[in-house]
Amino acid sequence: MKNQVLVVGSVAFDTVENAHGRAERVLGGAASYSSISASYFADPAVVAVVGTDFAAKDSAPFKKRGVNLDGLQVKEGKTFHWGGSYDKDLKNAVTKFTDLNVFQDFNPTLTPEQKEAKAVFLANIDPELQLSVLKQVKNPKLVACDTMNYWITSKRDAIIKVLKQTDLFFLNEAEARQLTGEYNLITAGKKILKLGAEHVIIKLGPNGSMLVSKLGIVQFPPYILEHVYDTTGAGDTFGGGATGYLASLRKWDTLSAIKRAMMIGNVMASFAIESFSVKRLANIKEGEIEKRLQDYTSMLRF
Amino acid sequence: MKNQVLVVGSVAFDTVENAHGRAERVLGGAASYSSISASYFADPAVVAVVGTDFAAKDSAPFKKRGVNLDGLQVKEGKTFHWGGSYDKDLKNAVTKFTDLNVFQDFNPTLTPEQKEAKAVFLANIDPELQLSVLKQVKNPKLVACDTMNYWITSKRDAIIKVLKQTDLFFLNEAEARQLTGEYNLITAGKKILKLGAEHVIIKLGPNGSMLVSKLGIVQFPPYILEHVYDTTGAGDTFGGGATGYLASLRKWDTLSAIKRAMMIGNVMASFAIESFSVKRLANIKEGEIEKRLQDYTSMLRF
Repeated sequence: MKNQVLVVGSVAFDTVENAHGRAERVLGGAASYSSISASYFADPAVVAVVGTDFAAKDSAPFKKRGVNLDGLQVKEGKTFHWGGSYDKDLKNAVTKFTDLNVFQDFNPTLTPEQKEAKAVFLANIDPELQLSVLKQVKNPKLVACDTMNYWITSKRDAIIKVLKQTDLFFLNEAEARQLTGEYNLITAGKKILKLGAEHVIIKLGPNGSMLVSKLGIVQFPPYILEHVYDTTGAGDTFGGGATGYLASLRKWDTLSAIKRAMMIGNVMASFAIESFSVKRLANIKEGEIEKRLQDYTSMLRF
Repeated sequence: MKNQVLVVGSVAFDTVENAHGRAERVLGGAASYSSISASYFADPAVVAVVGTDFAAKDSAPFKKRGVNLDGLQVKEGKTFHWGGSYDKDLKNAVTKFTDLNVFQDFNPTLTPEQKEAKAVFLANIDPELQLSVLKQVKNPKLVACDTMNYWITSKRDAIIKVLKQTDLFFLNEAEARQLTGEYNLITAGKKILKLGAEHVIIKLGPNGSMLVSKLGIVQFPPYILEHVYDTTGAGDTFGGGATGYLASLRKWDTLSAIKRAMMIGNVMASFAIESFSVKRLANIKEGEIEKRLQDYTSMLRF
């Protein structure tokens, strides 16, 4: 509880098809990937909703990683279920179905204890729900936030309200361009700073990530992997790992801390994409993260 | 002459249109960008052909940078002239015309002195011409080679012959995928090693570059710039700078030397894209390269 990170977002089932095979109704959702990723560095507590079809085996990966599920509401009905199919390069997914089910009426209500959270990761959900969470938390020292193209189109004003209360804003390069109308990512990042975010991290997929902040502008390559299995959840894993690491620090808002967080996010994402669902991510062995961090550091060293 | 690099390729005129304006019949061509880039680290000598319309002012940037033009043949007729127009993001160019002119019959013939070259940069030309140069040079300690999609389609067998004699093979990510049929760039790079190259450097455009070699696998971000003026020649500048730096070393084939060369290639490319033609690249002031190398190193330092 010392380094609690409240993770608000979706816990879902995914049915994914790609060149390696098919995973049927496996654990997915932004809050799942990001909280399990954060669990290696901090104490995440998930605020989400699932249906009555969500079984004990489905929550096993959270329990294994010590993720607090007190905030996981169970509603009569079915759990959010997404189905998608990737092209042979595992790059682009075509959505086959999006059954929101009980997630449609998700309305995060924090317990008195959750309102005291020192760090919050607002995974990709309706920005109005993100605002509602921000109203409830009392005095967080770190507010991290993710979003997606759908909300940029449909709820731009709400996103801008969220931004004004955000320390660390995560989005991918297409979303950064969409939100700002700027192609150059440094220019886009600076515009998002002007809108109110303290630090912007632009996720570059297979090309790593970029920080745009008053502290500095940094682009890091990914932790490179030859054998990629499924890229679902990579961005959520990146954000959750980076936020979990920062939440564990006494002082997180320095350039060196944020650079280290990006490095950690990149390494955590490399585990997420080595299997379907959170199978690999939830089962990282002692020393494996440290080993990849060392390889990564040595790759960048001159 | 101590660190001579023979640069074989095109010296051309470019007419470029982009969001910043229009440059009419300015100095371009792969050998121009790469030799001028190499000139900051070694002693490049260009082997190329121009027409009788190539004036003293057109060779001024080479002279300023001490590039040896003894191998620049002048043929009756017009110089190779390329015209292209970039989209507003400066990312993709549409070719408006390609007037090969005297370049159509380019047949590089080396002088006895050039045959003794210790390093060769074979810029993007017909791989059969690259093979002809490789037959003429006697005992180079470093053979670097670039290519393009056109030759991969039309002269694949010749490229594979070139690869068997190449120490350092440069190509961009689309070309690496085209040549090998592999999407993952590490897998693609390894296939190119199997075809015969000693080290493969995959150029990632705005995302930097990747090395695939028995010495290691490395991905570096670019030297990031907010204000990009014209990306023509960036890849040639990268390859020429990296090769020029390696040619200046007593022992170039170590991981740390090649990493440093990639870093230098990235920094040199950042100058090339700050103006039309070689205007910025040929006029880098004392200390500017060192400054960017320091900023770049500090960005990657933890």
